[in-house]
Amino acid sequence: MRVGFIGLGAMGEPMARNLARSNLLHAVWNRTEARAAAVAADYGLILASSPADLAAQVDVVLLCVSADRDVLEIVENLLPAIRPYTVVVDHSTVSPETSCQSASLIRARGGDFLDAPVTGGVEGARSASLVIMVGGRPATLAGVTPVLKTLSRRIVSMGDVGCGQAAKAVNQAMAAGINQAVTEALAFGQALGLDMHKVIDVVAGGAAGNWFLDKRGDTMIDGRFGPGFKVALHHKDLQICEQMASELGMTLPLVRQTVADYARLMAEGHGDEDISALYRLKKPKA
Amino acid sequence: MRVGFIGLGAMGEPMARNLARSNLLHAVWNRTEARAAAVAADYGLILASSPADLAAQVDVVLLCVSADRDVLEIVENLLPAIRPYTVVVDHSTVSPETSCQSASLIRARGGDFLDAPVTGGVEGARSASLVIMVGGRPATLAGVTPVLKTLSRRIVSMGDVGCGQAAKAVNQAMAAGINQAVTEALAFGQALGLDMHKVIDVVAGGAAGNWFLDKRGDTMIDGRFGPGFKVALHHKDLQICEQMASELGMTLPLVRQTVADYARLMAEGHGDEDISALYRLKKPKA
Repeated sequence: MRVGFIGLGAMGEPMARNLARSNLLHAVWNRTEARAAAVAADYGLILASSPADLAAQVDVVLLCVSADRDVLEIVENLLPAIRPYTVVVDHSTVSPETSCQSASLIRARGGDFLDAPVTGGVEGARSASLVIMVGGRPATLAGVTPVLKTLSRRIVSMGDVGCGQAAKAVNQAMAAGINQAVTEALAFGQALGLDMHKVIDVVAGGAAGNWFLDKRGDTMIDGRFGPGFKVALHHKDLQICEQMASELGMTLPLVRQTVADYARLMAEGHGDEDISALYRLKKPKA
Repeated sequence: MRVGFIGLGAMGEPMARNLARSNLLHAVWNRTEARAAAVAADYGLILASSPADLAAQVDVVLLCVSADRDVLEIVENLLPAIRPYTVVVDHSTVSPETSCQSASLIRARGGDFLDAPVTGGVEGARSASLVIMVGGRPATLAGVTPVLKTLSRRIVSMGDVGCGQAAKAVNQAMAAGINQAVTEALAFGQALGLDMHKVIDVVAGGAAGNWFLDKRGDTMIDGRFGPGFKVALHHKDLQICEQMASELGMTLPLVRQTVADYARLMAEGHGDEDISALYRLKKPKA
């Protein structure tokens, strides 16, 4: 089984490198060619000239890009090269609708498609400990499982095409609410004049404990919002959540507030910071 | 060093029993005498006839009751029996102001006072794994540390009298926000028709992971809101947070929303349920 990887960004590059180290990767393609050329050179891989060129040379295409329109553009480009039994696995975080459209185009050419968004961030991509939420046919998933195991510690089948993205949307919505919860409470503690590093240490060990406080609490109190999960990317994901909720006739108040807060951060030039930069808007005025 | 315990409620009783099993407990008192009589009989302790009667027979008084007015009433009652070096340790969750008032009354009689609210819930009280946030003089804390170690796995000095309660307020405010975050996102997932037990399992292991989802996610999806942390008690704690914030000229939007939501739950007869009962207000209509 020959595997190709499209999209060597912050997540895609370490994922591709893990596949290459396991001798599972055959070809790579990236919009900015230099990034793909570097990975191809490091492991002696084929540097494809286009998504279709890549798809023509492999059995499984893994995809990891940023936005819905990128996925649809690449799928369109792939189509002429799809053969029966080509499987396209999309690790991007996009709308379930984009997954359904992609699946239907690829299936019309005889291939198959899985939506397979991940959690675990850049650290998880590097250490091959991502959790993968999959939507699509169980038999197709079974076929590519040996490949996905090289990237992740956990692969969970969520249902039909789109269900992986729906589960990821729940994850992103919850992350937004937790960001609001943690930043509001830490701002309160800072206004009270408490030793916040002690407070974080104590609170993290109790019933209000959470991953975000544990990993980002101390840095946000110190005013550091360096690399992590970018505000602009979470903003894009939350707009997908809002769209999905509105189709259900639901409102998600914390998601809506977070979209508005992130828009303000982006307007102020903080879109590339970690999402803990929300603390900028909550912390007590000096 | 002889120790007495006042307030044998859901938290206080298992704490007192842990002290008794370590042969550190001398006397007990409780407003509803039957609960104190049972503990006294089990371990051969003195059943005090009043808080002052208890204080007269011990060096250290531990206190664990529900509300600010209970603490102040008991402290008033204790005062005649306070001798130099009597230490009163208040494990209740009340306002920093109540702690400061209590400390000043007890210090005027030559004794000393620590505010020492806990996290870890009933399970933590039973297994002696509470985390204790302490406000007050370090030397006083050092003196009673052997006693507190019998109840907890972690004792953290947060600063002067009141700082233990202030840290606890941050914890309670964060717990409110997390309740909002988790219930909103799970309701979204349920409306999307996902297999929610799978979603919880996956999300709990990622960057949106948190104690509350881990411990209460599955039960809330199943509509079970049994014993845990009572809505009515968290409601009381959050009103303290709101009061503290308003004194700082701050608003805490998630705390405010949660106070309103809990008030509605209490009006509908759910005040004794676990705080995950907030899901009742968020879940999609059947």
